[in-house]
Amino acid sequence: MRNFLSKKARNITPYVAGEQPRGRDIIKLNTNESPYPPSPRVYDAIKSELGSELRKYPDPCGGEFRMQAAEYVGLKEENIFCGNGSDEVLGFAFQAFFDEDRRIKVPDISYSFYPVWSQLFDIQTEIMPVNENFEIDVEDYYNSQGGVVIANPNAPTGIALKIEKIEKVVKNNLNCVVIIDEAYVEFGGDSAVPLVRMYDNLLVIRTLSKSQSLAGIRAGFAVGHPKLIDGLFRIKDSFNSYPVNSLTSAAAAAALKDKEYYNGVSKKVIETREWTAMELEKLGYEVLPSKTNFIFAKPKVKNAKEVFDALKENDIIVRWFDKDRIRDYLRITIGTDDDMKTLVECLTEINDSK
Amino acid sequence: MRNFLSKKARNITPYVAGEQPRGRDIIKLNTNESPYPPSPRVYDAIKSELGSELRKYPDPCGGEFRMQAAEYVGLKEENIFCGNGSDEVLGFAFQAFFDEDRRIKVPDISYSFYPVWSQLFDIQTEIMPVNENFEIDVEDYYNSQGGVVIANPNAPTGIALKIEKIEKVVKNNLNCVVIIDEAYVEFGGDSAVPLVRMYDNLLVIRTLSKSQSLAGIRAGFAVGHPKLIDGLFRIKDSFNSYPVNSLTSAAAAAALKDKEYYNGVSKKVIETREWTAMELEKLGYEVLPSKTNFIFAKPKVKNAKEVFDALKENDIIVRWFDKDRIRDYLRITIGTDDDMKTLVECLTEINDSK
Repeated sequence: MRNFLSKKARNITPYVAGEQPRGRDIIKLNTNESPYPPSPRVYDAIKSELGSELRKYPDPCGGEFRMQAAEYVGLKEENIFCGNGSDEVLGFAFQAFFDEDRRIKVPDISYSFYPVWSQLFDIQTEIMPVNENFEIDVEDYYNSQGGVVIANPNAPTGIALKIEKIEKVVKNNLNCVVIIDEAYVEFGGDSAVPLVRMYDNLLVIRTLSKSQSLAGIRAGFAVGHPKLIDGLFRIKDSFNSYPVNSLTSAAAAAALKDKEYYNGVSKKVIETREWTAMELEKLGYEVLPSKTNFIFAKPKVKNAKEVFDALKENDIIVRWFDKDRIRDYLRITIGTDDDMKTLVECLTEINDSK
Repeated sequence: MRNFLSKKARNITPYVAGEQPRGRDIIKLNTNESPYPPSPRVYDAIKSELGSELRKYPDPCGGEFRMQAAEYVGLKEENIFCGNGSDEVLGFAFQAFFDEDRRIKVPDISYSFYPVWSQLFDIQTEIMPVNENFEIDVEDYYNSQGGVVIANPNAPTGIALKIEKIEKVVKNNLNCVVIIDEAYVEFGGDSAVPLVRMYDNLLVIRTLSKSQSLAGIRAGFAVGHPKLIDGLFRIKDSFNSYPVNSLTSAAAAAALKDKEYYNGVSKKVIETREWTAMELEKLGYEVLPSKTNFIFAKPKVKNAKEVFDALKENDIIVRWFDKDRIRDYLRITIGTDDDMKTLVECLTEINDSK
């Protein structure tokens, strides 16, 4: 058969997401989903959308979702861009702010989708190694030619940068856009959102997939100067007029309104994380300091791949990256207390097994 | 302020969708939405998704939606790609099958998003004029260098090509991909889906926004040879792992299952269209033969822009394109019988006014 694929489609190496097994009774700790359900108000909001109006296109700007996101971060609607998950928002941002001929800077150990968007949109990317403690040295990111993308807290390490460090990166890149991906910020990180008032070259990206327990509805947003938001709209309107559907808009708005519920969820996840980290250390694991809803840890007795496989046999799925520098580590999402007790028991058995 | 936008974002001319006014009591005949609500089974399907599982990512392949779409068109899941509206599916297809250095062919009067995707993804496009009756001359599309995109029935003209003509285009382009955008096919057009078994270079695109009354949930899909579907997955997985959320998947699947309900809706829309066309002709309008849920018509007494403005003053919104060759026409979505009676009364008054 002839090959009908474009050069782009043939040559690109797509991102590989954690698997989404269905229907089996497994403990799923591989994609950093919340172990707790969304706020019941989310269900009510979705139900109230179920009617004849679904025949109409959604609001092209994100509707209620945009309004509530503005309220949530204490800025105006003109500072907010809503998308079909933060992945889409990031994909639009790569197109809106980065050019082929100006290299952007991205950490070597970070969200592995960044280099894929670079490939998809022909953006040259300079990969900056994190240091031996897996920390981002912010000086490495000063004076970038074309832009900077940093996840804070970083994934899969879980390590967070203080806001002063983020500000240094932004301040030392006044001629290009600095994207701070805050997918995990609500589990103990410092948000860069307050800097948006001061720096017009800063774009902060948020998702409702982790801290709002809403991976299933696909909602993410960007926070930035109106000129940057306008750039995102120019790309969005050249790709898909309505990426946020009516149900997602209503659900996301309801979630962002129910701060009390979600503060409780995040607090609980943090407690469970601290307990889990302590237990893993007792088992000899080296655990990186996490400000996220996962931990990144290096087993001692067996190697990471062996532990990954052994857990899988016991219906516990975590994430292992077959990648330089982190091949010895496992990324483990924080589940419920019961999930984590089962995990720790299982890891104890794995340590003890031949 | 410095301009942070990429060359792409600065230079592109985004698509302009019909306006989506909210909260007012208007007759909205400008974006080809269905005047009838979705099947009640769609609401039930969405309700059944409202639970703890929303905390998890959706199926990355579209889940139930993909299964039902395969069933709907009588092919296999491997022949189906699901996306966040057919716009997203088309956007992915431009990236997956077209290259910068091989020109694609697109009609001059057609869905005006096609040239925008060409611009966004740097694809050279040869614009083929439709003939003086606004018909696509299929010979013009033979032996394209890089690919073909045709809407059938076409928009905004409403004119349909017979399947024999579509087959000729496919057969005379065996070295590149022919995309047939069937957004409106269920209102009386011939579908090219049966040709998918015979031609591996044909990709058919469908949407649930029009005939399934589900513009608000954003669901579209592509039908083609598994190799083409794989190309779409390669782009999707390099942009957004989960473009179809859990609620959309459930809603779309339920809609595709309820053929009886939707056959009734399409039948009704067709009847109303025929009545409306007749009434407009009585008013002196030149009406193109439509196989869609809209009509494209040229007023006689006043010019199209005057009629558009006068209708708007009466809270009836239709679509007028300020574009060569079609500036004298209005695109009018088929509403309910009551909507169309009000429209005809209003047009009669406009004809009679000074």
